Amino acid sequence: MTIAYDVTAIGNAMVDVIATADEEFLASHDMAKGAMTLIDEARARALYASMGPGVEASGGSAGNTVAGVASFGGRSAYIGKVAADQLGEVFAHDLRAMGATFSVNPLSGGPATGRCLINVTPDGERTMNTYLGAAIELTADDVDPALIESSRIVYLEGYLFDPPEARRAFAKAAGLARGSGRLVALTLSDAFVVERHREALVGFIDTQVDVLFANESEICSLFETGDFAQAARAVAGRCGIAAITRGELGSVILAGEERHVIAAYPVEKVVDTTGAGDQYAAGFMFGLARERSLSECGKLGSLAAAEVIGHYGPRPGVSLSDLAAANGL
Amino acid sequence: MTIAYDVTAIGNAMVDVIATADEEFLASHDMAKGAMTLIDEARARALYASMGPGVEASGGSAGNTVAGVASFGGRSAYIGKVAADQLGEVFAHDLRAMGATFSVNPLSGGPATGRCLINVTPDGERTMNTYLGAAIELTADDVDPALIESSRIVYLEGYLFDPPEARRAFAKAAGLARGSGRLVALTLSDAFVVERHREALVGFIDTQVDVLFANESEICSLFETGDFAQAARAVAGRCGIAAITRGELGSVILAGEERHVIAAYPVEKVVDTTGAGDQYAAGFMFGLARERSLSECGKLGSLAAAEVIGHYGPRPGVSLSDLAAANGL
Repeated sequence: MTIAYDVTAIGNAMVDVIATADEEFLASHDMAKGAMTLIDEARARALYASMGPGVEASGGSAGNTVAGVASFGGRSAYIGKVAADQLGEVFAHDLRAMGATFSVNPLSGGPATGRCLINVTPDGERTMNTYLGAAIELTADDVDPALIESSRIVYLEGYLFDPPEARRAFAKAAGLARGSGRLVALTLSDAFVVERHREALVGFIDTQVDVLFANESEICSLFETGDFAQAARAVAGRCGIAAITRGELGSVILAGEERHVIAAYPVEKVVDTTGAGDQYAAGFMFGLARERSLSECGKLGSLAAAEVIGHYGPRPGVSLSDLAAANGL
Repeated sequence: MTIAYDVTAIGNAMVDVIATADEEFLASHDMAKGAMTLIDEARARALYASMGPGVEASGGSAGNTVAGVASFGGRSAYIGKVAADQLGEVFAHDLRAMGATFSVNPLSGGPATGRCLINVTPDGERTMNTYLGAAIELTADDVDPALIESSRIVYLEGYLFDPPEARRAFAKAAGLARGSGRLVALTLSDAFVVERHREALVGFIDTQVDVLFANESEICSLFETGDFAQAARAVAGRCGIAAITRGELGSVILAGEERHVIAAYPVEKVVDTTGAGDQYAAGFMFGLARERSLSECGKLGSLAAAEVIGHYGPRPGVSLSDLAAANGL
């Protein structure tokens, strides 16, 4: 099948509710700072009621990445489940307005569109509480084989290991991608996701993954070590390419014998780190799909991450294509 | 009745959908730059589909003002109609999270919560297309007399002259306020609103209004003149206090023989002018309710306006109370 897309991504479709909060707010609500915690609808209602005034923006880790790829000028598609409600319309609109393809039927008569309650502390760190809602109803039937087989890279969100049905969708997509010679990319998403599904994730990486994205705490959690160098050694042999982000230390790309250390782009003020990893993956995969060198892929990722942490919200505020050109990429 | 609120405001309850756009987009959709245009649901759907990715934030002119008064540390309440839907919940949450009172029953089985599609051009100017939705269903029954009679200032949005039923709510509130010795404040809202309802507005100002807010183009439209000085002379005798904003020229306050010219606060970069007038009114009325001098009222208004145009969204991004203290107000 002809290549029609650079990246097709599968993930939990979410609308973000972004509010500022102080450390005391996190403590008084027993939140693990910087983590993503799954909550049920009742807890979501209670938490929302106690949060400050918010701003709503389309989110979802893989959805953010697809938006980023589109902003780089890439052709991207998204597979994830929203409900037939107002927030679901917002989610679909925002992806399509970026130029991404999104054609999964919205869910009727079930839970509402999922939302991620994000409290951003003054240091720019985001702490997330996620009510999965309709996202949990994603099934293997929602994975369109034609989409997978015509995408250079199929990108899977580690968060999808949580909803059991979604995991089947995940496996179907990976199988179809491998079967048609496409690259399978995976992000570990969150250290607690790794904790919950370590064995399954390691097995999946060993057998199915070409490109692995993780941050330092996720990769350390995966190999149950506190030593980054050790975790890096452990991952190097397990998949073709591993791109590990390290916050202000930049990122490390491991591929066979190759090892690239990429500096972080300077950021004037870290406003909100939501979406940093998602946009890193967007830049990296856009580069990879366009056959750029691994170190250029890393730089594209770093540039996109730097852009998104300079403002509230998880998606690019400017054209990443223009930004890359302005930075000689 | 005891004073429980500094300001109670009545307006069209709206959720803003904010996207960036270029001049060409405005031209190709026949939009009058800087204006607020009423649209029906079909047009709202079509326009939204053609807009860029957006961010959703609670808005509505008087709602923004109530949020601003609360941010100054004032006690404020809001009267307006949302639907029993997701955007309606967002609207209610955001007001309550600011500490404002909002207890109007949401509408069931009617149109959805109103929304204002805002296209922000690179110069920071906003062009608004409003689908009133549930806001149009506000009735006089929604005006709680106890709320009006216990508020130092009752603030009315000129936009309410558009929905016919809302105009009755408006008249009821004004009558109750005058009957219990409260101040009645009015904003003209928009030059096209003035055009549509000039006679009714002049009559209302002559008989009911203590404090009038307007910008330069609105006050010129009201008196059908292109000459600001002439418009200022015309308004001076018609209501106790008139506060006229003039963008970067600051504002002019007219009260009997008194005349104060207030400079605009400097703004590093004008990002989005949405809410500038609303926040000016918030600062001014907070000062007035707390018996500050008219020139201090004007400065509080200018400060709040300067804050809100420095970021996307129509409501304060920081505590206006802290900001006022930091600026010696």
